[in-house]
Parts: sequence; C-alpha cells; structure tokens
Amino acid sequence: MGDDAAIITVPPEQELVVSTDMLVDGVHFSDRTTSAEDVGWRAAAANLSDLAAMGATPIGLTIGLGLPPTLGVDWVEALYTGFSQCLQHYGGVILGGDVCRSSVVTVSVTVLGQVRPDQKLWRSGARPGQVIVATGVHGASRAGLELLQQPQWGQDLSPLVRQALIQAHCRPQPRLDVLPYLRPFQAQGISVAGMDSSDGLADAVVQICEASGVGAQVWCDRIPMPPSFQETQSLNPEQALDWALYGGEDFELILCLPADGATTLVERLGNDATICGEVVAGSEVLLIGTSQSSATTSLRRAQGYQHF
Amino acid sequence: MGDDAAIITVPPEQELVVSTDMLVDGVHFSDRTTSAEDVGWRAAAANLSDLAAMGATPIGLTIGLGLPPTLGVDWVEALYTGFSQCLQHYGGVILGGDVCRSSVVTVSVTVLGQVRPDQKLWRSGARPGQVIVATGVHGASRAGLELLQQPQWGQDLSPLVRQALIQAHCRPQPRLDVLPYLRPFQAQGISVAGMDSSDGLADAVVQICEASGVGAQVWCDRIPMPPSFQETQSLNPEQALDWALYGGEDFELILCLPADGATTLVERLGNDATICGEVVAGSEVLLIGTSQSSATTSLRRAQGYQHF
Repeated sequence: MGDDAAIITVPPEQELVVSTDMLVDGVHFSDRTTSAEDVGWRAAAANLSDLAAMGATPIGLTIGLGLPPTLGVDWVEALYTGFSQCLQHYGGVILGGDVCRSSVVTVSVTVLGQVRPDQKLWRSGARPGQVIVATGVHGASRAGLELLQQPQWGQDLSPLVRQALIQAHCRPQPRLDVLPYLRPFQAQGISVAGMDSSDGLADAVVQICEASGVGAQVWCDRIPMPPSFQETQSLNPEQALDWALYGGEDFELILCLPADGATTLVERLGNDATICGEVVAGSEVLLIGTSQSSATTSLRRAQGYQHF
Repeated sequence: MGDDAAIITVPPEQELVVSTDMLVDGVHFSDRTTSAEDVGWRAAAANLSDLAAMGATPIGLTIGLGLPPTLGVDWVEALYTGFSQCLQHYGGVILGGDVCRSSVVTVSVTVLGQVRPDQKLWRSGARPGQVIVATGVHGASRAGLELLQQPQWGQDLSPLVRQALIQAHCRPQPRLDVLPYLRPFQAQGISVAGMDSSDGLADAVVQICEASGVGAQVWCDRIPMPPSFQETQSLNPEQALDWALYGGEDFELILCLPADGATTLVERLGNDATICGEVVAGSEVLLIGTSQSSATTSLRRAQGYQHF
C-alpha cells in the first residue's frame, strides 16, 4: 500500500509471460472512430490476446499514460473504465502505472500472465500433416472500421449487422476462452502450435510457418468470414478475402494440430472455428484458389511498423 | 524465439515486483542536456531504483518506444546501448518491447524484479525511536543538471568535480548494492523500512512517514551533500540545502532502523551513508535547523505530475 510497485506471487508450477504494447493517438486510434472507453478496452484486449497467443491466462497489466494537459479528466476516466470492463470480463487486474505529460495521447501497456510449461502455445510447433484451424471469423474488425470511417459503406446491411461489425472493431474479444479446449490435447502429448491473429490471419499463418520451418496451404474457400460479407453489394469477393486475410485486429487464434484433433476441437467449440488449411513441408505459404474466385497466390506478412 | 512475449521462471521462494515508468522528450529529458545513451541509462537506472526501493533484485525490463519517423537510427541504437550498459552493471535483461510511430520520443519501461518476502523493504515499516539513514549524498544530480543547463555556473569548481556532478545526473547509480547489507538485520527480525530518493530526500522521508503513520525530525546539519557544495561561490547554503532536500534523481535509499543497527550499517557501508534524523510519534515531518543556517521548517512532498 502506497508503494509504487506491485507485488505478485506466481504459483511455482506456472511460468510468467510478459508482453508490452504502445498505442499512440492518430496512429493506433483516433477520436473519430474510437471512444476513450473503446481505446481502453482495445488496449486491454490486444494485450490479453498476446497472452492467449502463448496459452497463458491473465495476472494483470500496468498502464503508462502520456497525456496532453488539455485532455479532459472524463477521457481518462473513460479510458480506465474500458480497461476495467475488459479485465473484469477476462480476468486480471490493473497492477500499477505511471501518468506523465505528453504532447500526444500515449497508452503503454505491459501485460503479465501465467502458463503451465506443458500448456504453452508455441509458434514453432507446427508440423507437416497438421491442419490449420482459425477460431471465429476474420475481417469483421476491418469491416467495422470501414463503417466507422465511411458510414455510407454497407448501407444495405441491417442496423444490427452494422452494429455487430462495429462492435467487432471497438470491443474485440481475445480468445482466452479457447485455451481450456486445448488442454485435453496437450495432456495427451498432442502438439498444438499457434498464435493470435492480431495482425491478420495471413500474417499469423506465415509467422507460424517461419517459426516452425514449414510451409502451408490455406484454402481460399474455407476462410471464415462474417456471413454479412455475402449480403452486401458494398463488398466484392476479392475485397472480402483481402479483409479476412489482411484486415487484422480480429484477435482470433490460428492453431495447428493433427486433423482428427482439429475436428474434435471444432466440434467442442460449437463450430466457432474452421479447418482452413494444412501444414506442409517446405517453406511456401500458399493461398489455394478456387476456379471461380482466385488463382493460387502466396500469403505474406503484415506490413508491421517500419521505422527506418 | 519469435514469440512476442517473454517467458520467465520466478523461483518459488520469491515474489515478483512490477513497476512502470514513462519518459517523454521535453518533459523528462532533453537533447540539450542528455545524450540518447544517457536517456537509456537513466531510464534503466530509475526503474532499477524502484526495485531497490522495494528490496528487490532485477529480473529484467520491457521497453516501449514511440519514435518520430525523422529520428535517426543512431539515436535508437545509442538508447539501447545505454539500457544495456546499465543492465550489464546491475543485472537484468531486456525482456521485450514494442516500437511504434509517435510525434514525440516516448520511452515506457516496465521493470520486473524478485524479492523474498522476508527481505521486502516497506515504506510503512518506520517506527518511533528508529533513526533515518540516507545512503550516498544528495543534491549532486541537481547540481549536474545545473552545470548542463548553465555552464557558467560553478566555474570555480575543478573540471574533475564538474564532471563528477554531471555524471551524477547522467549516469545515476541505483543502490541495489545496499540491499545485501540489510539482510543481516532482516534475518534477525529487525525491521528496516525505506524507499529510494528518486523524488528527493525530503519526499522520501515524508512518504515513509505518511505510509507508517509517524513523524520525523531531519537534522539540517546532517544532510549528506557533495563536498563540492562547500567549495563553490556559486552556491549559498540555502540553495545547497534546497537541492539536497528537493533536487531529486539522486536514486539513493532512505532507510529507517534502530539506532545501533544504523550505526553498524553505516560502518559496513564504509561511511557511504549518514544518520540524518529520527522517526518520532505524531505526523509532523520537521527539518531541525541550526542557529547559524536555518530555522525549523516542515519538509514537504515533491511536486509530482499534477494532470488536472
């Protein structure tokens, strides 16, 4: 109490997982599309998703804030509300933080989680013969952003569908709920590799392949997208596929495991997951097209932040 | 490897300590007074000092960087060099980080350390009858800043002395080295309270007193200052005292323990520490003046960052 640092006990059978993220106004969020509460939720969710990507469960997070003196106290309170709502939903507490003056709103989050060594999720564990499972749908967050930036887009979608896409962008759901479903496989010594799709489905598949020294074939017609993508005239199939593969910020999990295990997993998740490709030998990560829609192409990494 | 998060094992007999700090160009550092290497060293040192303040030893830290696209790669490399030099000296590793675009250079550090529960240093443990020990000297960092900002100041000081004061500002030394000297007391069940003096000696004493529900008397003529403060015509005694009490960023430790233990501690530290006051009942934190120099006054908290 009164001490600047937080003290935590990590159970001896658990390892500690640490990850950090910095968000800057105008780069990672904007007043035009994101309320302060949503900035808080999204920052918390992105960091919790980093834990899910490792198979870890939340302990808590620290929040470093750089704030312009002109910013209202309401904004900061709403930001904390968003953080708290997300942590209340998924577990973890605010462990501490720092507030300082800055010319630009800056939110720096370091998240701590814990994982049993035998339940870790590694990018490097993919093996030829496994299949690729994507949880949820991909592209919804990107579509939600489009609706916020271009309200004339998707006018033929129902208000409820529009709202759901916007929610996907503003209130992403880290897939910590999937982890317990992986435990039975891990307990049997069945390797499960994977990571989250924060930078897009394609990026996740490529990163897993690079880390594992394998290739992959992703089946174009099995990429899980929101059903609404087929209901709107505003979106042609190429654009829809691009958003699903490269839109990013869906915070789903991309997993690689043996085919029979994958089928069981998809069933247990109530079909909230899709087998959408397979791991192969080599290093090529291909999107296998259908005759109707597209040719076979290579998947590529997301354009990360290139400083220099 | 390739995974965004770091995984750490915390020994079962240790608790984890977490603390976070954000530094912004123009607020916490300036190109005019601080090289990139020094910014890195100072950021690492300030965070390691937060650990020392809790009695904890370093595990490592994460670095979140917000960087303007115009900033040269040299600056960033020098920043990391400063971080690495400090960690090499005091222990701990860089556990991970994030780099993003920002309009202002921003450095966000979260430090992790570990401490055995019986070796924790609490602010709330000060008891009447104990004495107050300050390690090192206070005011040197503030004098170093003055030399950087006003080079005409202290022209009567030797180049070596000027350099030492500048070093105190640019390369502060967190007092992790003091912690092993506290262990014999802690092993005997002798309570040691304390914290670091990052916001100044006065602030540390006031914070310890507030957390412990006690008062204190600090003896004006026992405040440990650099010897050079008496050698220069640029500094009158009132200014010297103000820098020692309120200058901040000396990153020494302020400790409260029984008088005989304190005497032993000062001896064991080779007199690199001074008994400079006593803990008393009540809530007044007084600076006891001498007839020559100053009257008795109240010590006050540092002016922290007041956002609203």
